[in-house]
Amino acid sequence: MGAGLRVTVWNEGVHEKVNSEVRKLYPDGIGAQIAQHLEKQPDIESVYVSELDHDGQGLTPVIVDSTDVMLWWGHTAHDQVTDENVQRVHERVLNGMGLVVLHSGHYSKIFKALMGTECGLKWRDVGEKERLWVVDPAHPIAEGLPEYIELPETEMYGEHFNIPQPDQLVFISWFAGGEVFRSGCCWHRGQGKVFYFRPGHETFPIYHDEWVLKVIHNGVKWAVPSGLQTVTRGNAQPLEPL
Amino acid sequence: MGAGLRVTVWNEGVHEKVNSEVRKLYPDGIGAQIAQHLEKQPDIESVYVSELDHDGQGLTPVIVDSTDVMLWWGHTAHDQVTDENVQRVHERVLNGMGLVVLHSGHYSKIFKALMGTECGLKWRDVGEKERLWVVDPAHPIAEGLPEYIELPETEMYGEHFNIPQPDQLVFISWFAGGEVFRSGCCWHRGQGKVFYFRPGHETFPIYHDEWVLKVIHNGVKWAVPSGLQTVTRGNAQPLEPL
Amino acid sequence: MGAGLRVTVWNEGVHEKVNSEVRKLYPDGIGAQIAQHLEKQPDIESVYVSELDHDGQGLTPVIVDSTDVMLWWGHTAHDQVTDENVQRVHERVLNGMGLVVLHSGHYSKIFKALMGTECGLKWRDVGEKERLWVVDPAHPIAEGLPEYIELPETEMYGEHFNIPQPDQLVFISWFAGGEVFRSGCCWHRGQGKVFYFRPGHETFPIYHDEWVLKVIHNGVKWAVPSGLQTVTRGNAQPLEPL
Amino acid sequence: MGAGLRVTVWNEGVHEKVNSEVRKLYPDGIGAQIAQHLEKQPDIESVYVSELDHDGQGLTPVIVDSTDVMLWWGHTAHDQVTDENVQRVHERVLNGMGLVVLHSGHYSKIFKALMGTECGLKWRDVGEKERLWVVDPAHPIAEGLPEYIELPETEMYGEHFNIPQPDQLVFISWFAGGEVFRSGCCWHRGQGKVFYFRPGHETFPIYHDEWVLKVIHNGVKWAVPSGLQTVTRGNAQPLEPL
Repeated sequence: MGAGLRVTVWNEGVHEKVNSEVRKLYPDGIGAQIAQHLEKQPDIESVYVSELDHDGQGLTPVIVDSTDVMLWWGHTAHDQVTDENVQRVHERVLNGMGLVVLHSGHYSKIFKALMGTECGLKWRDVGEKERLWVVDPAHPIAEGLPEYIELPETEMYGEHFNIPQPDQLVFISWFAGGEVFRSGCCWHRGQGKVFYFRPGHETFPIYHDEWVLKVIHNGVKWAVPSGLQTVTRGNAQPLEPL
Repeated sequence: MGAGLRVTVWNEGVHEKVNSEVRKLYPDGIGAQIAQHLEKQPDIESVYVSELDHDGQGLTPVIVDSTDVMLWWGHTAHDQVTDENVQRVHERVLNGMGLVVLHSGHYSKIFKALMGTECGLKWRDVGEKERLWVVDPAHPIAEGLPEYIELPETEMYGEHFNIPQPDQLVFISWFAGGEVFRSGCCWHRGQGKVFYFRPGHETFPIYHDEWVLKVIHNGVKWAVPSGLQTVTRGNAQPLEPL
Repeated sequence: MGAGLRVTVWNEGVHEKVNSEVRKLYPDGIGAQIAQHLEKQPDIESVYVSELDHDGQGLTPVIVDSTDVMLWWGHTAHDQVTDENVQRVHERVLNGMGLVVLHSGHYSKIFKALMGTECGLKWRDVGEKERLWVVDPAHPIAEGLPEYIELPETEMYGEHFNIPQPDQLVFISWFAGGEVFRSGCCWHRGQGKVFYFRPGHETFPIYHDEWVLKVIHNGVKWAVPSGLQTVTRGNAQPLEPL
Repeated sequence: MGAGLRVTVWNEGVHEKVNSEVRKLYPDGIGAQIAQHLEKQPDIESVYVSELDHDGQGLTPVIVDSTDVMLWWGHTAHDQVTDENVQRVHERVLNGMGLVVLHSGHYSKIFKALMGTECGLKWRDVGEKERLWVVDPAHPIAEGLPEYIELPETEMYGEHFNIPQPDQLVFISWFAGGEVFRSGCCWHRGQGKVFYFRPGHETFPIYHDEWVLKVIHNGVKWAVPSGLQTVTRGNAQPLEPL
């Protein structure tokens, strides 16, 4: 992998069409903003932006099967993604595709299906300060970061975040209003990897922040398919005489 | 909890009706066999056996809501459990009910929903020897056990078992045919706890083994509801002046 | 266990002797203050307060060997505890004793030996507000708590806390000055259990807070010896014909 | 990292000098055998073999400080490594160096210090069959492997292996004599990473096996320093007005 890494940024793409404030921040869409950063990276071969109103919701078998790492941004239209498309992405993750779920994607069908929990949390949207602390300094997703990332104005997400215990917890957020949040969480699922990263919002310029973009890039690299190519299950002949 | 602990053993109850060999081993059903052991325990107040062909599949709101820890045995009729009933049990686990999933319950809808993976494995049903080794000797589920439990004739389950990394891994099985398996796995899900325990089969007398029954009892005790009574989510006022 | 639970509160006991402010808060010592709460609990049989200036530093073989769960408070005299005594406690933990390490005990020899890391952190002692959020609501140590515990004036401890990834993370602290901290951390070590709990300070009345005392009691119950009585290691005869 | 990766293979080097059978298998030493495989890898810049009877036990500040990933093979002379040298390696790991501990290195001073446990296990040295199963197929250390690795003749290591719960468990071994073992275990410690890999013995040709060598190479790549360059601890000024 690496040199030939194919990334798909799946973006719901609704806010940008109906809200001029969002369009001002992200004239080509949130997906395009993230994609333009990833496209500059020499370790990524191709970046494709997929949106909900594309053919097949941008989740056709051809797209999903030719993606090594998918990013997922959604907020207001989670329910519009068909169960069939969710299942296709789910199976592809279990078969090795990396998935990087951003911000309000915590409530997407695909994230809930992969977690097995309802993924709720506390929230408040008044533009307060957030500080993301690195709590696993040896983790590749923390590569090249400072000890904390500060975002002057964000939506607050607070505990309890209803997710399974992360296999690895990379970031914990502090919010000015008094809450904390597990903001960077890693899990393996089957042959695939899942990274949830909290920052991101449609009306704050979160995806213009260099450190946020760096974490997303680090997350993509961490989520690259690796490990076994083939896993067999089902009825099995004994390997020893019985 | 403890003194007032209410346990429900949910048993699919199909094999016992159609297979005389199974009926001979478990004349009153697999559920009843497990229940008679739990009923003897002073730390359990009541044990109720629920079956698929009971009213509401034995999973009515009254039953589910008045259960502290549920055991789940199913094999041949996983698909018959309605999605609505699965969802009720799922929500109840997230709200605090313990769930002990036995043997072929790995492929039940409820276990797959809680894990977020497809829960497949290798298997072979020729009656070979299994030895379950305790790999977390400090775990309450290992209370009072010897270093390993030996079962002379079992169905084999082999890796890769497609589950999320257990929060705690208590047992690893050795099989005569050459495989290994993560046989005792613990997870928290929301306010609830889930314990998967591998042994158990309809035509081997697994649930007559004293150590297997002891592990099931230990697992019930571990899965007892504990922790926060109330968790709030959704829009939240700041706790500090902003 | 349970009914017969024997607890030892090991308290360094230096601040109380040299600082009148501390003596005013804890006239009989920090250890005695914690002990008086535990003594009231029906699930604890006996509570013994051990101090550094007792015979054998309060860590004689008789004391250590007859303790089921030990609490550890130290700050200014970590280096005075002899290596021999540290080793005795270390071995006892590996053989099943629970250990609850409080506050500045993060820098004790015994905690560093059990963690394998240097256990450093950021700190600031100006009396700011702390809020401990429960992030694992299913954990027995969260039993009966509200969603968060607020302490109006505490010493700040901030990340990165140089510890191994906790097996279970129960609390995360928010501090008014802008930091976060993994404040309630659980590990198994051999047959024993270790719980680190951050709050506690000599000049703030932390151990007079009812919720802090409740967490300490919950921590003691969690750390009670359980699991295998006997583990054998060394040269082993085959269990199968070779 | 990557292109400039500097690896040191630390080899005790005692068996090779006193046992002609070992010398026949590893004429230039076990360290040299492992090194010759790593030297062929384009992602590794340099491989240095260090031995106990070198200057400064092959663990001088210059060597340790210029190593990105160290491999450790020891068996019969663990106690001869000075505490000062162990401490130097320990601190270097906490500051970012990767450490790959092989086989009987489980009883080395450095491994015990990093684990915080006594690291004992069951063993038997009669040349039985071992089969290492991959239980985390998404892990980079499983990259390019088959579902299991078979070794026709090995020393047996059996549970309970007295280590902290691995952050990630990659391999579980099956042994013909009836035991199982957690054979590939990953931990973060401070800014560094530790991988323990069980196979390896002085009188069986384990380090001539292509899959074992591949796992060692994968382990080196996983253990490469990554994450934060700088972590500060100690007294800290507030980041928010107090």
